[in-house]
Order: sequence, then C-alpha cells, then structure tokens
Amino acid sequence: MTSADEATGTTRGEPLTIAQIARRAGVSVATVSKVVNGRLDVAPETRNLIEELIRRHGYRRQKRATRPAPLIEVVFHELRGLYGIEIINGVNQIARENRLAVVVSELGGNRTPGRGWVEDVLARRPTGVIAVFSCLTEEQGRRLRSRDIPLVFVDPTGEPGHDAPSVGASNWNGGLAATRHLLDLGHRRIAVITGPDDVLSARARLDGYRAAMDFAGVPVDPVLIRRGDFQIEDGLRLTRELLRLSDPPTAVFACNDGEALGVYQAAAEAGLRIPGDLSVVGFDDLPMAEWNIPPLTSVRQPLQEMAAAAATMTVALAQGRPPSRHRVELATELVVRGSTAPPK
Amino acid sequence: MTSADEATGTTRGEPLTIAQIARRAGVSVATVSKVVNGRLDVAPETRNLIEELIRRHGYRRQKRATRPAPLIEVVFHELRGLYGIEIINGVNQIARENRLAVVVSELGGNRTPGRGWVEDVLARRPTGVIAVFSCLTEEQGRRLRSRDIPLVFVDPTGEPGHDAPSVGASNWNGGLAATRHLLDLGHRRIAVITGPDDVLSARARLDGYRAAMDFAGVPVDPVLIRRGDFQIEDGLRLTRELLRLSDPPTAVFACNDGEALGVYQAAAEAGLRIPGDLSVVGFDDLPMAEWNIPPLTSVRQPLQEMAAAAATMTVALAQGRPPSRHRVELATELVVRGSTAPPK
Repeated sequence: MTSADEATGTTRGEPLTIAQIARRAGVSVATVSKVVNGRLDVAPETRNLIEELIRRHGYRRQKRATRPAPLIEVVFHELRGLYGIEIINGVNQIARENRLAVVVSELGGNRTPGRGWVEDVLARRPTGVIAVFSCLTEEQGRRLRSRDIPLVFVDPTGEPGHDAPSVGASNWNGGLAATRHLLDLGHRRIAVITGPDDVLSARARLDGYRAAMDFAGVPVDPVLIRRGDFQIEDGLRLTRELLRLSDPPTAVFACNDGEALGVYQAAAEAGLRIPGDLSVVGFDDLPMAEWNIPPLTSVRQPLQEMAAAAATMTVALAQGRPPSRHRVELATELVVRGSTAPPK
Repeated sequence: MTSADEATGTTRGEPLTIAQIARRAGVSVATVSKVVNGRLDVAPETRNLIEELIRRHGYRRQKRATRPAPLIEVVFHELRGLYGIEIINGVNQIARENRLAVVVSELGGNRTPGRGWVEDVLARRPTGVIAVFSCLTEEQGRRLRSRDIPLVFVDPTGEPGHDAPSVGASNWNGGLAATRHLLDLGHRRIAVITGPDDVLSARARLDGYRAAMDFAGVPVDPVLIRRGDFQIEDGLRLTRELLRLSDPPTAVFACNDGEALGVYQAAAEAGLRIPGDLSVVGFDDLPMAEWNIPPLTSVRQPLQEMAAAAATMTVALAQGRPPSRHRVELATELVVRGSTAPPK
C-alpha cells in the first residue's frame, strides 16, 4: 500500500476509486477506465491485473457527481417492425428486476444519432445506454464515457468506433445452417437476398451461405446474390428479378423475415407455390414467421435474450463490475416449417 | 380583485396559482384541480369560469416541489405486435419536439398496473403518463393527481375510473363501414369476430356491424357472432368453427388485423381462396395489412396520430393548459384492398 493510499484511509474492505486502482496497477487512469468500461484495447496482462484488484477490493465509481437516474436508454436506428418489440421486451425484463425504466428513442432511420441526441442523454443521466443496430460517433462515445455512462451495442453495424461491449447472434452459423438445409433438400440454384453491405451481421449471413455452398461443392452463381436493405420491398423487387432469370433459383435464402415476406409476395404474383415451386428460408424468426402462409422456415435469432444480455451487461457496468466478456454471441437455430421442400 | 390577492401581489401579467384561481372563482381548490387536470366532473358554467380565469391570467402549477423530469411515460397492457410500434412512434414524434424522452413500460398482459408500478412512476416524476389500452385503479389515478402528473388514455378499455382525458378512434363508424362494404358487395352471411366483451372499442365495432346489418334489413344470425380476444389464434380457431357451420359465412369482419390473419390461416387450411371463397375485412390497418396475401381490406385506425394527440394533450396539461376537449376521437377509414369481393 502506498502512502497516498494510507492518506486516503483505504482499507481492505473499502472499494477503490479508479485513481487508486491506477496507482496500484502502475497504469494510467485512462487505462483503468477502459477496463471498467469493458473496452478491448488494453493488453491482456494489464487487464488481468486491474480486474484482480477490482475483484479483491471492489471498485467505487467516482466520476458521476450525482447518482444516475433509474433509467436505461435503448436507441434504435429505426423502430419499424416486430424486431423492436422483441428488443424492448428483453430490456424491460432486466429493467424491471432492477427497477429501472426503459427510455426508447429512434433515430429516424439514421444509424448514427444526430447532434442533439447525446446532450439529451447526458442531461437525463441514465444508468446506461443500449444502442441497437446503430453506431455512435467517436465523439458521442467519448462523451458518454466522460460521464461514466456505460454503453453496450446490440447487433452492431460494424462501422468504426465499436470498442464498447456488444451482444449479437451467431449470424455466420445461421447463414450456414439455412443454406445447408436447402442443399440437403436437394437445391442447387439457391439465391440469397442479403442485408446492407456495411452491416456486419448481414455480411456474416452471406459468408455463411458462401461457406455452405463451397463445402457442398456447389459453385456460387453471382447472379443469384442480390443486395437488399432488410425491407419487405427488397424481397419483393429482388425476387421479381430472380424469377425473370433464364435459369431462376429453386430456393431463396432471405437474410431477414421481412425480405422473406417479400419473396412470398413475388411468388404469389408469379403464380408460384411455396414450397412446391420455390423454397424460402428467412432469418430472425420473429413472432410472425409462424403465421406466414405457409409458415416460414427461419433462422431463429434470440432477440429478447440478446436484449436481456445487453441490459444485464449495462447494469453490471453501472455497478462497477466489468463484464466477463466483451462480446456475447448467442446461438442461432434453424426452425424448419412449411416453406421449404425438395425442388421439383 | 380580493384583498387576499392584493396581499400576494398578483398583477394582471402574472400567472395565478391554483389557490388564487379557486378564490376568484369562489370554488374549492379541488374543483380547479379537476379542471386543470382535464377531468369531466365539473359543472359546465364552473368549468367555463375557471377556464376564462386561466385564459386571462395564466396558471402556475405549484404542487410539484421540483420540476418534472423531461420524461413522458407510455404504459402498455401488453407489448406484442405492431400496434405498440405505431404508438411509440407517435409519442416519440411529439416527445422529440418537446425534448422529452419516452419511457415505455409493459404490464405483462394485465390491463391494470400492479402495486409497485405507481411508486416507480412517482419516483421518476415524469412530465406525464399515457396509458394505452389499459386501466388504472382509482387509487393509482389519485396518486398521480396528487403529484400533479397528467394522465391521458389512448383507446381506454372502458373500465371504471376513466375520468382522465382520452384519445380514441371512431370505432363504431369503422364497424359500420366495414360491414356496409361487405353488404354492398352482396354478402348476407357476414360473420364477425369481436374483441373482449369488456373493452369499449371492441363493443363499438360490434355495434357498428349490427347497425349496418339492421339498416340493410339483413337479420343478424347470432351464430355468426364470435367472441375473440384480439389475437391471431382467435381468428384461426373461431373461423374454423364458422366454416364447420351447415350454412357458413361468405365473409368475415375481424375486429383487428391479428384476428384477420387468423382468418387467412383457417381459410388456407380449408382450401378456401380469399376473396373468391371468403371475403375478409380487418381493423387497425397496421403496416403489415398491405403485405397479407392477398392484401387485407381493413379499417384504418390512425394509431400514430392518436398517440401524438395523446402526447400533445399530456404536454399541454403539464404546462397548465387544460385540453380544449376531454375526449379526442379521430376518424377511421376503410381501406379497400384485395381481400374482399362479391360472394360466389
């Protein structure tokens, strides 16, 4: 124990401040701050040392002048379908247990919050912020950190600046499972309707598709890969294009359930039966998937659990407990229903 | 001006407190409180007098010891489908303009909040509360009023205690329009799948159906009226029953879009085509209605606008401006799509 610690009267049972931890670990306050905020960019041995100090002595947040408000903020880039309801319900579950209220905001389709957003959040002094399918600027992240407001991402878009903890699903495995299911049924002309190019989860699903095709020795025909934006309209428009090909697909892997619904529309327009004439697999398995006619085979992404995991991480961070993992990835699972069958 | 007012130094330009208004109007503080909180149980002439005083002098809220937090609370009995997304987006629109954050809570399917709910709300000191398809107990309403927290209902369930301002849609007219549309197409065996018996909006839709049938001189066959609970499963189960009748309906008016989706399922099971073999009308016109196959004819309920109206009323009440109307009812509109056609 240094004399400085003696002077501040720190004893074994009393939690350390961030400055005290920094002194004991022989590192900067900024480095300790990174660890307690769950950031990755700290050397493993330093991280271990700091975590060991926190485990032994506890850690007392000090920057926040006043106690945080009993609020947890969820920010969506867009609140449009059942995806949002699942997330809110998942966060609400953990919020209720911790007597926190859930503040929901929406960025009007922008993936990065605008100028006023962070000021309003700072003024509310929430216990933490969960950003869903969104991206904060470096500056916004920095300002939250400067007030010690924990930030956790759900389904991060993959743009730069994502050094905060995050929760996602095993998208690559899901893409693999969806495509393997179609291959196993005997399909070879398998189209894929993807999500936005710059979104990590969309890219992972497409890569899973490619891997399944490669492993099965089925050449990927580039004309069968169509870029969508996760909207119903994309599924409709891109399937119309696919069905006009001289050698059209016998199956479509749509990278979310919305796009899959668009595939159903295009098939109905063209007088094609699902699954007799065209097999369809979706992704997300939102509550409506089982009510498609026929019920949609889809890759289940456990959105409520993902949101609950993010809320749990946020609460832990707010209580000065660094999360045991920087990245939590929950398993996806193929749910086979009536929209897939062997090709004719 | 009374000497008491002179003593408190009230001048023309300065807003009056609730006690000053009460003295000037010669009524109790409780009566003024009712008016500024938008309650109905005040005689019209008293109400007019009080409103005139407020118009002339302004009104200064005084009960709230501290300024309210920049939060607006939305409480749902259940957060399950796109209905909730529409409401949140509508509230968010007004909240953004007023720099308020939206707190979303869900009662797990209960129409009345449980014990802890009101304590948590009081502790958060929100600017106001919007209760959606829910009912507060007398005691809960009283406790919000005691802290001067405005309360506005959206689509109130109709249980007792609803003296707070509310926003709804013209449900009776919607039921009438839906049924008239089917009658105009030539249908006579028209079934209706209703909502819960004790919910006002559901009752109004059913009454609109009855009125249309009566005006057209078509006897209502009680066997064609089926009680649902606004869930997809009800539409499925009750349509199965209807299709087993010796004289089955040629058209079904489902009292929400979820039930209508269940009708689609039952029709598909039975090998019936919509609209060739069975016409279907829904209610709500949620964003998914146009994506049903075929697209659903539905009565549009302007949920986003209803929610925005409720938020506007809440903000006005919080600023000491009694709403110009205690009840706002927005028009419904029949949107004809592909699920209705003349009977075979």
